[in-house]
Amino acid sequence: MRLRRDRRAPEYLENDERVILNPQDFKGNWKENFGNDHPIHVEFGCGKGGFITELAIRNPNINYIAAERAETVVYKACKKANDKEDIPDNLRFLYFDVNNCKDIFEKGEVERIYLNFSDPWPKKRHAYKRLTNRGFLEKYEYILAEKGEIHFKTDNKGLFAYSIEEFSAMKWVMKNVTLDLHNSDMEDNIMTEYEKKFSEMGYTINRLEAYK
Amino acid sequence: MRLRRDRRAPEYLENDERVILNPQDFKGNWKENFGNDHPIHVEFGCGKGGFITELAIRNPNINYIAAERAETVVYKACKKANDKEDIPDNLRFLYFDVNNCKDIFEKGEVERIYLNFSDPWPKKRHAYKRLTNRGFLEKYEYILAEKGEIHFKTDNKGLFAYSIEEFSAMKWVMKNVTLDLHNSDMEDNIMTEYEKKFSEMGYTINRLEAYK
Repeated sequence: MRLRRDRRAPEYLENDERVILNPQDFKGNWKENFGNDHPIHVEFGCGKGGFITELAIRNPNINYIAAERAETVVYKACKKANDKEDIPDNLRFLYFDVNNCKDIFEKGEVERIYLNFSDPWPKKRHAYKRLTNRGFLEKYEYILAEKGEIHFKTDNKGLFAYSIEEFSAMKWVMKNVTLDLHNSDMEDNIMTEYEKKFSEMGYTINRLEAYK
Repeated sequence: MRLRRDRRAPEYLENDERVILNPQDFKGNWKENFGNDHPIHVEFGCGKGGFITELAIRNPNINYIAAERAETVVYKACKKANDKEDIPDNLRFLYFDVNNCKDIFEKGEVERIYLNFSDPWPKKRHAYKRLTNRGFLEKYEYILAEKGEIHFKTDNKGLFAYSIEEFSAMKWVMKNVTLDLHNSDMEDNIMTEYEKKFSEMGYTINRLEAYK
């Protein structure tokens, strides 16, 4: 998601407790940051943040970390989360490049990774930038706990097909695969802002879960 | 494909050289049946036979075996193939239950298996009948040569999603995956009769190749 830079972002981000400006300092110590032993679920590319904020409200016994690369996106997502009255203290926002996720998380520190409507980077020469590229999958494998899972959804047929190839080539097992999420068995799907908009326009949503 | 039984079928099938009534007698000896050393490609569920007949015409250096369970379907497909003027002697028709494929082919005897628009058997209790069920995949693995491949296409989203799960669980590698075959890079796609009809109705076609 591209947004115009917001001048209010830096000050807000510096002063909000949900925002972690120095995430690498918590590598291996995220449970201390949250003050409990609950499992850690991460969303790489949280966009407007509606998905992970709703998860945090529904599941107070899970710790959520939402990541985006762009400062302004994090600012908007965090502000929106803070506007909710009922949100517990189990949600953090970070901004960093997913390429550096091993600098932020220790081996096996994360129980689940959400990838929602990631940038499809449709040109072949940009394939390495897709968040399901095998280079990323290796990093995810490192930070994920045993039996940790990736939950991935996208409306983009090309990205979904590519991702199946990458998961398969890297010997991940895929389960709960659907090519039409909104007409599937899944009952507790939380729609992202993007998902609401594009499914209303008639796009079908693809989804899968993968583990090593 | 269900067809009314055709009374002419038995006599035709008995007298046509393309039809092999005793396929189990050729187990391990298909190359002798064809009289050459060319690779053997099989279609399980050939329906009206247009796909494999066109392949046989295009690729005289490959031996093709088309299988269907129902006598009448084989009869129609075979008759249609014989009506073509330019068809070489590299195509055989059999009727047998794919469950019994290990009675027909020796270990490693087949280079490629085509599964086109297989019955989706949408009810969960019928999942074991789907031709990409893991029970079938184990049999395919047995009859396929090293580096042998399954080429699978379907318009049915549920069957495609299920098949990805099954291939993945059984550690097959999937490649050339597409969720929209007719808008993909694949240039030499041969459409089946079913595919022509349903893609004209607006259904997108899913396709993948898998190997162990």
